[in-house]
Amino acid sequence: MADDRPNPSGEDALIARYFRPLATDPGAFGLLDDAAAVDARGEDIVVTTDAVVEGVHYLEGDPPDTIARKALRVNLSDLAAKGATPAGFVLTLALSGAETSWLTEFARGLGEDVKLFGCPLLGGDTVSTPGPAMVSITAFGRAPKGTMVHRSGAAPGDRIMVTGAIGDATLGLDILKGGATAAAMAGDPAARDHLISRYRVPQPRNALALPVRDHASAAMDVSDGLAGDLAKLCAASGVSAVIDAPRIPISDAARAVLARGAAGIERLVSGGDDYELLCAVPEARVESFAEAARLAGVALTAIGRVIAGTGAPRFLGADGAEIALKRLSYSHF
Amino acid sequence: MADDRPNPSGEDALIARYFRPLATDPGAFGLLDDAAAVDARGEDIVVTTDAVVEGVHYLEGDPPDTIARKALRVNLSDLAAKGATPAGFVLTLALSGAETSWLTEFARGLGEDVKLFGCPLLGGDTVSTPGPAMVSITAFGRAPKGTMVHRSGAAPGDRIMVTGAIGDATLGLDILKGGATAAAMAGDPAARDHLISRYRVPQPRNALALPVRDHASAAMDVSDGLAGDLAKLCAASGVSAVIDAPRIPISDAARAVLARGAAGIERLVSGGDDYELLCAVPEARVESFAEAARLAGVALTAIGRVIAGTGAPRFLGADGAEIALKRLSYSHF
Repeated sequence: MADDRPNPSGEDALIARYFRPLATDPGAFGLLDDAAAVDARGEDIVVTTDAVVEGVHYLEGDPPDTIARKALRVNLSDLAAKGATPAGFVLTLALSGAETSWLTEFARGLGEDVKLFGCPLLGGDTVSTPGPAMVSITAFGRAPKGTMVHRSGAAPGDRIMVTGAIGDATLGLDILKGGATAAAMAGDPAARDHLISRYRVPQPRNALALPVRDHASAAMDVSDGLAGDLAKLCAASGVSAVIDAPRIPISDAARAVLARGAAGIERLVSGGDDYELLCAVPEARVESFAEAARLAGVALTAIGRVIAGTGAPRFLGADGAEIALKRLSYSHF
Repeated sequence: MADDRPNPSGEDALIARYFRPLATDPGAFGLLDDAAAVDARGEDIVVTTDAVVEGVHYLEGDPPDTIARKALRVNLSDLAAKGATPAGFVLTLALSGAETSWLTEFARGLGEDVKLFGCPLLGGDTVSTPGPAMVSITAFGRAPKGTMVHRSGAAPGDRIMVTGAIGDATLGLDILKGGATAAAMAGDPAARDHLISRYRVPQPRNALALPVRDHASAAMDVSDGLAGDLAKLCAASGVSAVIDAPRIPISDAARAVLARGAAGIERLVSGGDDYELLCAVPEARVESFAEAARLAGVALTAIGRVIAGTGAPRFLGADGAEIALKRLSYSHF
């Protein structure tokens, strides 16, 4: 990102107005240079990148501040799962135009999250596109050398634990698309708003990053559905798992949707956009991890156990029978 | 980027097939995890991000291997200008589909450049878009702490130097778009191909990164046109400059276009996509810098001088009169 005083182009004026205030790290050089410098302080720089596309990962009419927050938070969620503390990010913004009101709200939401998560803007690129808008973020975190938490590392006997609640976001999306959940929840605006908000603005669990590093044998964030992401973690670790489905944490709003028959548990565990943490935790570490989560104010629930084997994880219902999952996760392709 | 053995989605199969071979750095974890780790080795990590959009930065029918190369090279060019050596990159690929032939060629071109520039793939994200394709790359370089070269730092008396030749790419684009250059060069296929190739596949000057760090007081790459980018460098440094236009290095092909009247020098210095290095070099360093460029096999030309003042840089013709520039650079907005 660059300034161009003698001949301010649209891009440069845009950067100066909306994004320079977010570039609080000295390594961003006020967005006046062609690159940023991350001082690694002798640690590993953990790098993750995730993009959100209009009409695919968010809806055209979504409030711009929530689009900005989601774009940053899906990356922060990856850093949390890897046990890294946020160090900053670069932003690529592809827009078909640059409406002042949209950009103002986008930058406001982003700026608030920059402060909230201590993750300053380091640089970026704004490009014109004739197509749908796209926000691509590459985020950086720090972790002591070699301590990044991997998908691999889970061992038979480890407890499977998740943060927060599972399935809200996919129900929120269903409401926004006018699906069965919308009709079922028409009379309950509070639950409806809760589910929509969980789709639009994930709550990344960065407060748990250090405990994840200290206690988890493997971790990832749940972005494409609990079942599919657990299958990925198990595959990377060369293990399988059994999940006690009634133990999967579900919000009151999602429970109401289930009670009204608008969705089943399969939908909740295969829907995407949860952005909760999925961890394998050795038995001896479970109590310390749970205590750390309590101190951080993050809900943490044990939902099953890692077992030997290479089959897909099984989800067992209250009756002990396996729940059939038609698909494990959501794929945009 | 992630693997998903029990339930291979389109994205995961795509990553395994096309991109895992490019992820040669141990910090990429074979693209099997949610993040990569860059070992900073006690240095600064220099970060830059640039995106290319179909129909904006490259043309729909462009060969896929050249699209990949351009997307990586525009970032490598930034690293070179900042005096940083490549450490790796993350790739976000937004596609409306994933045609095997397109991806095969894209990955082949990218893989060749990964080897050529020693810049391995560390991770990425593939997303679906209903719009034009977009390739967004965030690249990382290493530089000893505090040695990144900035746009600021140029001082009155410094020589202005550029690598390679200026203006080829904008003429190549004009040919591809069927402009005046196409007609003028119809009888000279070699020159025509040279200009098109310079548009499609920039030659980043990474071989000069260390000499830039050792000798330049300020530097940036020329991506939006020499005149506009020089104005940016001068503004960041609080100086102005005088350029001796006849000294601006121009290829034989571009010279032929000028001779046939299809474009003027104004076009060459305000067109984009050169991806040459623009440096301010203190007089005492000029000879050492030139010698380093000779050793590296990179053409380097002194084209003017930094002067005190804050006005836009002036370009003087052979008669000493100022050349009027209607616009300094290209803006997509």
